[in-house]
Amino acid sequence: MTDGAMAPGLSGSASDPEMHVRTVESARFVGGQVPDLAEFDQWYDECGKQNYTEVERVPLEDLAGWRTDPVTGNIGHHSGKFFTVQGLDVRLPGAAVPAWTQPIINQPEVGILGILVKEFDGVLHCLMQAKVEPGNANGVQLSPTVQATRSNYTGVHKGKAVPYLEYFRDRDRPHRMIADVRQSEQGAWFHRKRNRNMIIEVFEPVEVLDGFCWLTIGQVHELLQVEDLINMDARTVLACLPFAGAQPADTTSGLDGFRAALMRSCEGGRGSRHSMGDILAWITDARTQYDDVHATMIPLDQVRGWRRNPEAIWHETGAFFRVIGVNVRAGGREVGQWMQPMIEPLGIGLVAVLVKRIDGVLHVLMHARVEAGYLDVIELGPTVQCTPENYDHLTPAARPPFLDEVLATSPDQIRYDTVLSEEGGRFYHARNRYLVVETNRDVPLQQYPDYRWMTLSQLGELLRHSHYVNIQARSLIACLHSLWSKQAVLA
Amino acid sequence: MTDGAMAPGLSGSASDPEMHVRTVESARFVGGQVPDLAEFDQWYDECGKQNYTEVERVPLEDLAGWRTDPVTGNIGHHSGKFFTVQGLDVRLPGAAVPAWTQPIINQPEVGILGILVKEFDGVLHCLMQAKVEPGNANGVQLSPTVQATRSNYTGVHKGKAVPYLEYFRDRDRPHRMIADVRQSEQGAWFHRKRNRNMIIEVFEPVEVLDGFCWLTIGQVHELLQVEDLINMDARTVLACLPFAGAQPADTTSGLDGFRAALMRSCEGGRGSRHSMGDILAWITDARTQYDDVHATMIPLDQVRGWRRNPEAIWHETGAFFRVIGVNVRAGGREVGQWMQPMIEPLGIGLVAVLVKRIDGVLHVLMHARVEAGYLDVIELGPTVQCTPENYDHLTPAARPPFLDEVLATSPDQIRYDTVLSEEGGRFYHARNRYLVVETNRDVPLQQYPDYRWMTLSQLGELLRHSHYVNIQARSLIACLHSLWSKQAVLA
Repeated sequence: MTDGAMAPGLSGSASDPEMHVRTVESARFVGGQVPDLAEFDQWYDECGKQNYTEVERVPLEDLAGWRTDPVTGNIGHHSGKFFTVQGLDVRLPGAAVPAWTQPIINQPEVGILGILVKEFDGVLHCLMQAKVEPGNANGVQLSPTVQATRSNYTGVHKGKAVPYLEYFRDRDRPHRMIADVRQSEQGAWFHRKRNRNMIIEVFEPVEVLDGFCWLTIGQVHELLQVEDLINMDARTVLACLPFAGAQPADTTSGLDGFRAALMRSCEGGRGSRHSMGDILAWITDARTQYDDVHATMIPLDQVRGWRRNPEAIWHETGAFFRVIGVNVRAGGREVGQWMQPMIEPLGIGLVAVLVKRIDGVLHVLMHARVEAGYLDVIELGPTVQCTPENYDHLTPAARPPFLDEVLATSPDQIRYDTVLSEEGGRFYHARNRYLVVETNRDVPLQQYPDYRWMTLSQLGELLRHSHYVNIQARSLIACLHSLWSKQAVLA
Repeated sequence: MTDGAMAPGLSGSASDPEMHVRTVESARFVGGQVPDLAEFDQWYDECGKQNYTEVERVPLEDLAGWRTDPVTGNIGHHSGKFFTVQGLDVRLPGAAVPAWTQPIINQPEVGILGILVKEFDGVLHCLMQAKVEPGNANGVQLSPTVQATRSNYTGVHKGKAVPYLEYFRDRDRPHRMIADVRQSEQGAWFHRKRNRNMIIEVFEPVEVLDGFCWLTIGQVHELLQVEDLINMDARTVLACLPFAGAQPADTTSGLDGFRAALMRSCEGGRGSRHSMGDILAWITDARTQYDDVHATMIPLDQVRGWRRNPEAIWHETGAFFRVIGVNVRAGGREVGQWMQPMIEPLGIGLVAVLVKRIDGVLHVLMHARVEAGYLDVIELGPTVQCTPENYDHLTPAARPPFLDEVLATSPDQIRYDTVLSEEGGRFYHARNRYLVVETNRDVPLQQYPDYRWMTLSQLGELLRHSHYVNIQARSLIACLHSLWSKQAVLA
């Protein structure tokens, strides 16, 4: 909330056309005095040594601080805070799998994911944090400035104060709100989970604490090419950074065709395959069609097809995910030791979009996707979002559309291909292969009524609002933005 | 869903800047061959004779087709369709009234409210219906082309087919989708009720059935000045009609200051007090603040402070509303006779906005309002929305902000002042005084953090999306649009 308190010389907010994201090619650090990415690596390694977790699996029944409700079987924290593991009963009339039950995380609190940005010598920098989470497969990852549940910052945790939180909570500071929007998280694992995604530009000097550093947008984009480095919470916030006007239009002339098409896609106002009105009507229609979707919380003991013993909860086929318990000993974090349940997914997932140049403008093929945990039935997901091995033994008809096309793609069509981690606070070693594949194929609407070609500008417009673009698609939007950087485009 | 099937010569959808609402001063009928509003009156009177309801109060216990659940006390239809009357338990920590329970209508189906529009000789016309509803205090009112619950059009009703429904359901017809968005209804009386608000432009000849007629936008605007004439469902759809570009900008020179400021407010792109980004951040902040609002369905028998006998359900103070039963005999409708429960509110409500010219652009003072039945905690309501007599005996501090200012306004500040009816299918004689009051006062944000000045263009932008603008505010937006017509502006 800026309450109209704009800084002198700045007009409008980030979402207005006049707001430009000032990226430049010359990437450099300011706060940490690290002039290039080689020195970043050194800083990052050092952070990894200072911030660590030792994670040990423990039986669900032995989780100190947590209890299983004797009546429902639900697993909750004794404070009543954080989250509970409950059951969900899903009815999807007309779908391939029209009904199922599953365990799900219920975390009704809206937390804050916030990135502080600041201009140094005309270059916009993001204050990033090297943060370790128990579910991370590789220790430290780059996180937003603030990544805090409400329990975190209201002190239920009994841990240290969350650094920089005051910038996101105190409205009287002179800052500019670039983005502030609640966005959903994994609808297959979370019941109606939302976090507030915030980007705030500050004008005053900011002390850089241990474990934090300023990176330019260009540097963050380069680091998005590295496996498991930029964490999910950072990616979703970065996706909300408006990119219209980030580059002068006339710079497209020197670019290769792909990057020029990408830039036009971000700019907006150019030929999009469908108008924004048509896209919104399509979403309304899809949400109305699936209006008899029911997702009701049930006792965890009443989920069918799942097995439970003192150790864990798992699906009888071994598919989907397991609910496990962990004991965490951490250095460099708010709290030194704790236990918690986590979700451990099966295998590495695939999150892929087909992209296509239509009249010189890059379009992304979005899927109107139902997930049980969504607040409003449907959100726009990537072209393909699944764990391929779940489909290994099924007939081609039962496989998700475009899955085989994406898997069979030739290397010269691949524009982005990196494995990235999902939220390490709730998910144990949850990793997805994020893939951008360029295609020339037609996608007839009659045959694929749940898919639409959209520009990045249209997705950016939807990202100003809640519940339109899912977390996996938001990650890919951050990755697509990163392809602006020359270094980032694959050969 | 247009699926890209644009009619030749038309580009983009209504929500795009190039779409102009083609209103003209010369109001005339086409379908009904009624050339002026005098003849409209004659046609309308005739419709009132052919379409009537005889409504008789009957005890809740005697409603044929309805039953009271012996365990919960909930009142439902034997088919399980239409709606149920249940209980709602509301917790609003920190509010003046932090907790209460109440009866509420649960109608999870998303119905269709649709207006068919068509150009005759360059003038856009709306196909309006003279429709009677049992709750209307005055018989027939002007309704959208289609006003149908899902039960209506899937035949649970066992009534006649809904005329013109095929235009809104059949996607293969050559038409242009001007608006298609789900919007909420009264959050105090409905639990999460939503209807799909649709405007479709057709190009083919349309047969005008008995009880329907084509009216220009200008005529509809004039009729909005008449008490209880344009019904709620028509008003909410009209509010979703985009008004940007409706008049060439240079026509403002001949207008009085108020109408010129109104036109600039609709046009957008001109000085708004707050940027759209700031408005969205303010809404995010408000929704996050009230995130611990809980509204849980409970058995109707468990509402506290309410009395029930075989006749009705009422609050022990006599305030708020009653749940009553009615027996309806209707002519000119789908079904000849039925019974149903209805909500009968206490007194005539007040729905008022303060408007102010800021740098020559009309701004409307909107209120971030919590209602128990909203899907997402808060929607933007008018400056004042209440039943004044509920506050007659309370101290000034307990009265809603701006209520006394609105009631004490001098006649020369009043731009619109008409009593209009709410939905007559569920509410019995529910009427509100709709009021637009121009002011010069300052509204300091520190003192009124839940209020913001907004332009009509900004409200129009929000109306492209669900759950931002409440039903009362949408009615007032339709009324504000109507003030464009010279005839409509009060002296």
